[in-house]
Amino acid sequence: MSAVTVGKFITIEGGEGAGKSTNIQFIMDFLQQKGIKVLQTREPGGTPLAERIRKILLDKIESTIHCDTELLLMFAARAQHLHEVILPALQKGIWVVCDRFTDATYAYQGGGRGIDKQRIKSLETWVQGKLRPDKTLIFDLPIEVGLERAGNRSDPDRFELENIEFFNRVRSTYLERANKTPEKYVVINAEPKIERVQQDIANVLEQLVAKI
Amino acid sequence: MSAVTVGKFITIEGGEGAGKSTNIQFIMDFLQQKGIKVLQTREPGGTPLAERIRKILLDKIESTIHCDTELLLMFAARAQHLHEVILPALQKGIWVVCDRFTDATYAYQGGGRGIDKQRIKSLETWVQGKLRPDKTLIFDLPIEVGLERAGNRSDPDRFELENIEFFNRVRSTYLERANKTPEKYVVINAEPKIERVQQDIANVLEQLVAKI
Repeated sequence: MSAVTVGKFITIEGGEGAGKSTNIQFIMDFLQQKGIKVLQTREPGGTPLAERIRKILLDKIESTIHCDTELLLMFAARAQHLHEVILPALQKGIWVVCDRFTDATYAYQGGGRGIDKQRIKSLETWVQGKLRPDKTLIFDLPIEVGLERAGNRSDPDRFELENIEFFNRVRSTYLERANKTPEKYVVINAEPKIERVQQDIANVLEQLVAKI
Repeated sequence: MSAVTVGKFITIEGGEGAGKSTNIQFIMDFLQQKGIKVLQTREPGGTPLAERIRKILLDKIESTIHCDTELLLMFAARAQHLHEVILPALQKGIWVVCDRFTDATYAYQGGGRGIDKQRIKSLETWVQGKLRPDKTLIFDLPIEVGLERAGNRSDPDRFELENIEFFNRVRSTYLERANKTPEKYVVINAEPKIERVQQDIANVLEQLVAKI
């Protein structure tokens, strides 16, 4: 797989109740107003086949799923999504905004489930070659606040049923990764009111757009 | 994953119309008559979750599945099957007879689809650690004969729709693998009448049982 791409690849990460959906809409509107062609997608999923895999992954009935299986399914969905949607878009110069990507795998399967990160890294290289996001925005807030905000959701999926220690490990992994490679990540404090959060997002996007 | 197992792990391979189903029944009966506890299973599949993955893999509607996705799904199903069924059985001293295993991945995804075998090997090690079958029986016959025998099947799956060159590459890969590691494989000529084939199978099984 060639890593030569022309569109920017932006991924959006964050735990429960961090406001990802609202903020992604803001990002899409912002970029489109700048005249940028941009595609919104999500993981796991983003193609009909990958959405079938997503259904298995989120299904509460699959309580005996082995952590290796979970990880391979995540990357199976990712491979399809990459080849069918993300790479063709980037190669045409279209920007891609993806709700979760491989950082989520490090956070949930690595941090959350405790899978050895070297095992994740080897699949990342196997599937993605050299492709990595150009910029990753992590919407961060204390787990308790996020869970309270997300608390109204009626039907939690297999991940949302995890306990607070799991989500704390997820959060720590996101922050560690951002800390190690600050030029690739922006951690956005998702606790303040929405206008403040969106001002932070706008600042990040202005810098990205300015580099075109 | 520890490779310390006590039951024997026997895998059954072969192309279209090679009589795998009938011969597996013969193998099960033969071993049970020797007083051996033995479990029959299959790939892709063998657990409820892995059978869900099998459905995606064999579904004709998934005509745009990328070869990397196909391979990762095969190994996702395998990981679940190994941890939930095969390893627990072997560790209890139960023999396992599995209809297709990783040799099929080398044959169909490697030989058939042309995926680099090193890429398959890296996933094999990732998922299986050191676990390999104790013995693999390959039921072999010319593609034309097999397709003619299988021709009555009413509803071919996504693999059965492939062309004769694909199946020839599958067959060659099986034979190459058997040729490289003759102590692990037995190639059984599946062309003669069934009594003759089953006599060959019985000879192989007698040797395996004698080693207990």
